[in-house]
Amino acid sequence: MNIKPLGDRIVIKVLEEEERTKGGIVLPDTAKEKPQKGEVVAVGSGEIIDGKKVPLEVKVGDKIIFSKYAGTEVKLDSEEYLILRQSDVLAILE
Amino acid sequence: MNIKPLGDRIVIKVLEEEERTKGGIVLPDTAKEKPQKGEVVAVGSGEIIDGKKVPLEVKVGDKIIFSKYAGTEVKLDSEEYLILRQSDVLAILE
Amino acid sequence: MNIKPLGDRIVIKVLEEEERTKGGIVLPDTAKEKPQKGEVVAVGSGEIIDGKKVPLEVKVGDKIIFSKYAGTEVKLDSEEYLILRQSDVLAILE
Amino acid sequence: MNIKPLGDRIVIKVLEEEERTKGGIVLPDTAKEKPQKGEVVAVGSGEIIDGKKVPLEVKVGDKIIFSKYAGTEVKLDSEEYLILRQSDVLAILE
Amino acid sequence: MNIKPLGDRIVIKVLEEEERTKGGIVLPDTAKEKPQKGEVVAVGSGEIIDGKKVPLEVKVGDKIIFSKYAGTEVKLDSEEYLILRQSDVLAILE
Amino acid sequence: MNIKPLGDRIVIKVLEEEERTKGGIVLPDTAKEKPQKGEVVAVGSGEIIDGKKVPLEVKVGDKIIFSKYAGTEVKLDSEEYLILRQSDVLAILE
Amino acid sequence: MNIKPLGDRIVIKVLEEEERTKGGIVLPDTAKEKPQKGEVVAVGSGEIIDGKKVPLEVKVGDKIIFSKYAGTEVKLDSEEYLILRQSDVLAILE
Repeated sequence: MNIKPLGDRIVIKVLEEEERTKGGIVLPDTAKEKPQKGEVVAVGSGEIIDGKKVPLEVKVGDKIIFSKYAGTEVKLDSEEYLILRQSDVLAILE
Repeated sequence: MNIKPLGDRIVIKVLEEEERTKGGIVLPDTAKEKPQKGEVVAVGSGEIIDGKKVPLEVKVGDKIIFSKYAGTEVKLDSEEYLILRQSDVLAILE
Repeated sequence: MNIKPLGDRIVIKVLEEEERTKGGIVLPDTAKEKPQKGEVVAVGSGEIIDGKKVPLEVKVGDKIIFSKYAGTEVKLDSEEYLILRQSDVLAILE
Repeated sequence: MNIKPLGDRIVIKVLEEEERTKGGIVLPDTAKEKPQKGEVVAVGSGEIIDGKKVPLEVKVGDKIIFSKYAGTEVKLDSEEYLILRQSDVLAILE
Repeated sequence: MNIKPLGDRIVIKVLEEEERTKGGIVLPDTAKEKPQKGEVVAVGSGEIIDGKKVPLEVKVGDKIIFSKYAGTEVKLDSEEYLILRQSDVLAILE
Repeated sequence: MNIKPLGDRIVIKVLEEEERTKGGIVLPDTAKEKPQKGEVVAVGSGEIIDGKKVPLEVKVGDKIIFSKYAGTEVKLDSEEYLILRQSDVLAILE
Repeated sequence: MNIKPLGDRIVIKVLEEEERTKGGIVLPDTAKEKPQKGEVVAVGSGEIIDGKKVPLEVKVGDKIIFSKYAGTEVKLDSEEYLILRQSDVLAILE
């Protein structure tokens, strides 16, 4: 991967998901934001908290859940990636 | 549980509640936000406060009250969960 | 009381008050927010200020004045309570 | 006085003021906020600044000028008081 | 002067200024805020920055330039004054 | 120069610039804010950061680029100046 | 380069990019902000974090990805540049 995200940022590859119900209809029942899944391909050098550089909890290869509308799309070598801040990562799937 | 929430986040299973009155009618008397109940199924590694990692007060198995519109829904193995920040937890039921 | 509020939160029982004037008419003369009274039934473990846990000033049994629209209603054993932050408490009545 | 304001709050008794001009007409010449006068009847235990409790500058008995729309009205023993934060106090009259 | 401003506040007497052009017409050419001049008549005890009281840079007798819409008007002994925060003072004229 | 800006403020003289294109027409191609140039004529005593006074990077005589709509105009001895905060200065021209 | 950006600012030269699809049509599929590429031509002296000057991660010559609407355009010697804060830089391309 030839990209180095800055500070507390990470680069991920978005993972596709089944979004249709069995009957083929999407029925949103709440206004809550749906998260998305991704795989981490690069991580920044860390977050500066109270003057100290704290390494990120997220590592390359982790499968993560992130807030749907977070981040910035970027195309590299005709592949689409997403640059997020670690704070947009909700959880790591294990 | 195969999910690890980040930082001060927790994963809960929402607990269903009776919402109808005895006569079957809902009569909201104020504009105050109604809370909901949930059971904690996973907790993050802690919150960083002034440069130190402080473990969360909430533990796996706790029954909690949380703000209704907080959090992000996530489906894992066809079960619905909710990812919250600990600050969205109002109280622990004992 | 089987509820433990988190951090700087407290649980109160709202105290009813006479709201009608002697002549039976309410005459609001300003747009200022009216406070309400309550009795504290449970307190959180304290507030974290600059990395240190500071115990709350408010104690169980205190009669308090709080901002009217603050807090979240919660029903426990068919009784109504209110969960507030200590910062929503204006004063203690003695 | 049977009321103890919390933290950096104070309780005052508002002082009435002549508001009419000599000719009996009010002529606001700017949009600037008019202050009001009050007498301090109770003060909180102090303000926490960077982890230390700093006693308030304002004392019981002080006559103060405060921002007109600040504070919360409270009625005690059929007397009207106002609960303010010390930051709403502009100056002490001597 | 019988007024003591609190903390980082100062009391000033506004200085009148010629506002008409030579031809008698005001032609604002930008939307930029016009400043005003004043003379300092009282200063607060200082500003608390990171837990330490820092005395104000402005002294009684200083002629200052301040942001036009800043501050609160106050009438004392039938004279008009203005209470400002030191941060509303742009510069001292020497 | 008989003006002393406070804290992290500076006083500049705006430098005029050619704004017309060769053909005499202005064609803004983006919504981005255009900067302006100025020469520093006075600087404040410094910025207080975490309790310490840090001298300004900008010096009297520096030619600077600043954000167009920043600052407050002030007329001194029939000359027009602009009072800016150092944070409105984008770069120094050398 | 005769320009010195202040503090955590950098100066870049924007790099042009193919924006048309093979068929010649642009089809935005989401509302996400598109980033842009640039080459760093000058960097500031660093960012002050908790009272200490931290040098920038970005160096002169780095190719970077930045948020599209960030920054201020500046023309020097008839060349167009962009002044950004380091926080507007998403990643370094290697």
